[in-house]
Amino acid sequence: MTLSMYQASAPRFAHMLKSLAAILDKAQAHAEARKIDPLVLSAARLYPDMFALARQVQVACDTAKGAVARLAGVENPKHEDTEKTFAELKARIDKTVAFIEGVKPAQIDGSEDREIVMKLGPREVQWKGMQYLLGFALPNFYFHAATAYDILRHNGVELAKRDFIGNV
Amino acid sequence: MTLSMYQASAPRFAHMLKSLAAILDKAQAHAEARKIDPLVLSAARLYPDMFALARQVQVACDTAKGAVARLAGVENPKHEDTEKTFAELKARIDKTVAFIEGVKPAQIDGSEDREIVMKLGPREVQWKGMQYLLGFALPNFYFHAATAYDILRHNGVELAKRDFIGNV
Repeated sequence: MTLSMYQASAPRFAHMLKSLAAILDKAQAHAEARKIDPLVLSAARLYPDMFALARQVQVACDTAKGAVARLAGVENPKHEDTEKTFAELKARIDKTVAFIEGVKPAQIDGSEDREIVMKLGPREVQWKGMQYLLGFALPNFYFHAATAYDILRHNGVELAKRDFIGNV
Repeated sequence: MTLSMYQASAPRFAHMLKSLAAILDKAQAHAEARKIDPLVLSAARLYPDMFALARQVQVACDTAKGAVARLAGVENPKHEDTEKTFAELKARIDKTVAFIEGVKPAQIDGSEDREIVMKLGPREVQWKGMQYLLGFALPNFYFHAATAYDILRHNGVELAKRDFIGNV
């Protein structure tokens, strides 16, 4: 087995997104057991100018989707940010995973030197594919997934690191 | 440029650890400006049974150090968890980065199928090198780095995503 751009991207995004969906299931169950409105959790944030849980999930999804689309050189499907409930957030994850799993290894492998151009706020940033994946997409993706986990832990949802890492 | 086990590991760990050191500098400046005891921040946590900031930094360091040592097949130096102040935590990061940067690409490249055995709590886990890096070491490392950032943001330190991602 040789490390490849595909191995380092699509399956890892899909794996973590599935862990995130299972984490949302635990949050839903926690809310139901304690008669907490789940919308309180999906709107929870760690600081007033940080993203709320729902937005963390949306950005994690879009970071993964965008990375797979850009590295494969295929159109990046637009997913509107309309989700509020856990069921809606899980559906967002599901359609993101379906997109990721629809891309074949050969479409991403060899993309190390592919020119990637994207807007980061007001800046237009240019990367080579490998630098984009390792230096931006993966840390940004894990940042939002971990912050989603942190928001739920901060609100008392019983989660452990294994919920984040999954079975590897 | 071809993606390799070295490219996907050592330089990424070192880059994020340097971002984390710069984040600790901002936390120190924040504490001084507001006459907050910095030890309050290094002992801060998001929930009573989560790790405090200092421990998040220590675990991030050890995850990176352990991954580089195991993939390279060299002895994993033991760093005692004694740090409390920001200066001590930055020194911990510095010695971790020095270790990581002392390992040469050729020592890590080709480690995709290397047998990795480690203890995770009570479990002994076996991985191939690639699965260990992509499925455990990187997400675990970014989890602890992101949670350190989240703890500081939650406590009012002014940080932005760019402090986490760094210049890529």
